[in-house]
Amino acid sequence: MSAGTAAAAEEQPGHLMRREMAEQPAVLERILTRGAGRIREVARRIAARQPRFVLLTARGSSDNAALYAKYLLEIRLGMPCGLVSMSTITAYGARPDLRDVLLITVSQSGGSPDLVAATKAAGAAGAITLAVTNNPDSPLAAVSEQHLDIMAGAEQALPATKSYTATLLALHLFVAGLGGDADGVAVARELPGLAEHLVDRHGEIRALAARYRFAERMVFTSRGYGYATANEAALKLMETAYIPALSYSGADLMHGPLAMVDNISPVIAVVSDGKGGQALQPVLDRLRGRGADLVVVGPRAEVERASAGFALPTRGVAEEVQPILEIIPLQRLAYEVTLARGFDPDAPRALAKVTKTH
Amino acid sequence: MSAGTAAAAEEQPGHLMRREMAEQPAVLERILTRGAGRIREVARRIAARQPRFVLLTARGSSDNAALYAKYLLEIRLGMPCGLVSMSTITAYGARPDLRDVLLITVSQSGGSPDLVAATKAAGAAGAITLAVTNNPDSPLAAVSEQHLDIMAGAEQALPATKSYTATLLALHLFVAGLGGDADGVAVARELPGLAEHLVDRHGEIRALAARYRFAERMVFTSRGYGYATANEAALKLMETAYIPALSYSGADLMHGPLAMVDNISPVIAVVSDGKGGQALQPVLDRLRGRGADLVVVGPRAEVERASAGFALPTRGVAEEVQPILEIIPLQRLAYEVTLARGFDPDAPRALAKVTKTH
Repeated sequence: MSAGTAAAAEEQPGHLMRREMAEQPAVLERILTRGAGRIREVARRIAARQPRFVLLTARGSSDNAALYAKYLLEIRLGMPCGLVSMSTITAYGARPDLRDVLLITVSQSGGSPDLVAATKAAGAAGAITLAVTNNPDSPLAAVSEQHLDIMAGAEQALPATKSYTATLLALHLFVAGLGGDADGVAVARELPGLAEHLVDRHGEIRALAARYRFAERMVFTSRGYGYATANEAALKLMETAYIPALSYSGADLMHGPLAMVDNISPVIAVVSDGKGGQALQPVLDRLRGRGADLVVVGPRAEVERASAGFALPTRGVAEEVQPILEIIPLQRLAYEVTLARGFDPDAPRALAKVTKTH
Repeated sequence: MSAGTAAAAEEQPGHLMRREMAEQPAVLERILTRGAGRIREVARRIAARQPRFVLLTARGSSDNAALYAKYLLEIRLGMPCGLVSMSTITAYGARPDLRDVLLITVSQSGGSPDLVAATKAAGAAGAITLAVTNNPDSPLAAVSEQHLDIMAGAEQALPATKSYTATLLALHLFVAGLGGDADGVAVARELPGLAEHLVDRHGEIRALAARYRFAERMVFTSRGYGYATANEAALKLMETAYIPALSYSGADLMHGPLAMVDNISPVIAVVSDGKGGQALQPVLDRLRGRGADLVVVGPRAEVERASAGFALPTRGVAEEVQPILEIIPLQRLAYEVTLARGFDPDAPRALAKVTKTH
């Protein structure tokens, strides 16, 4: 690209988000080659303390990353987990007994005052505290006993993209280490190359975006590991394109919101290649039976049975790391729909990068 | 009402839901007078086992009731809690170590096969299991070690109303008992009378419904105890009126979805009279600053600062039991909006009363 073309690209709406999405393969590679050793060491130290329960606390995209970690911890390690309702500590002053509890606080910036306060209070209540951030010098890292650096580099666009996938990979490596599993890196080895391939397929996403440019609402669904992806994709669409996007686990969708799905609400299903995708089949059958506009992000065979979709290269990729790939086309979908609607994905109205709730 | 008028009322759309909403004061009274002793006894037995952590599992409206219990347990008893991601057990076969864990499964029917399977698996993994249902003869009650009967009587309309408030009251009494607090009944003593008063104010709700009849989407928000109410109100609107209704804790709303709130999305804030409502103030200020159409369900002073609302008689009512009242006008709102749109609240399309996900 010439200097003049580069300068023009700099001025296009969404250039920050686009650049950061494109950085994801390199960020994943960096974590695997330069971060994994340190993550294993943190996991080893925490495993030595023998936590029996895990609480996770986060907001926004980080909350979806925390949900991914919850599935990993429950399925792979059999550790009961909960997501903290922060206001119980910050507004009501609850001081729970947190002996034997590992509290994982996930925050890209590490700067939200309420997360810092809640983490500090949890440490005082006996919890082992672990911060997962993109900033080792953040207040959150400072008040936490242990810290994982997600090594994503500065993120300037308001919608989190590379920091999300980086957080997932760091959490995967951490949970593998916590379980004494030395293969955390091996399982993830193909991810940077596959992510590169996904980033390059933006033409397909642009076509999908044209289809949903005028959608007044969207429903996302998944089961198992992919549920975090569904939540994160819905959040991306809401915060960039201002489309009301709802996300339900397949089972919850049957309990009420299904009444809302009809031929004017497209349903985007994240179908993991594995047990989560299998558990979603009855939901997909029901949606097809109702004539819903069903878009599948998942294995090619599933995409072919849907109204539209995006085939993921999941063959040989363990289900538990598929969310690190699944979100990439959906980030791009939010970006393309936002541009098609005439907005700037880099700077959604009303949002600040570090949210100062107390 | 003459027999002829009664027969005509029987044929009106929504007559089941309307009748069941109106039964709520009597159901609450029944639990306080005839159920409280048994609930205290169950709580005493479980307290003797000294659980240290609580996991909650439920779907749909019961999931919102479980969220209410989570706040009670964390704030009043300092017990760390988590909501179970069911598929980790039913789809992935996770077998967590659940010693010292109390698993509370909430289900109106007690019939969902996945809840029964997950509860059974949790018991086998060492958890103390407690079922909270409207049916003592249900499969769920049978596989659980302990059972709380919410005594709501048969619920025929598909949207849960009386079973929701009955579950909240039963959970309040249970948590009070678990903490050795003999005053659980005293704190709730005024609720049946206040509920009666709320049920009678349907004219006010009809006026509010006229205002939102054509809304294409709605956003609910709250903090603290009222957050369960916001979730349940959103679910009611989705399942009966098919309006995409999103619910966020006030802090989460700032992390993305706020970009979506503008002068075409009304925001309904559930403002509890207490610490939760205080913690919501910065969010309310921000919404007013953006010119949002802000509807408040809460104390009269808060309603007067909003665009519209419904004043709750919260004076002298402990914040922790206010959710039992807050939802009543919002159930009616869903009912009135549904009728105004020409649908039948009793029988939303696509829904079954007992959801058979596995």
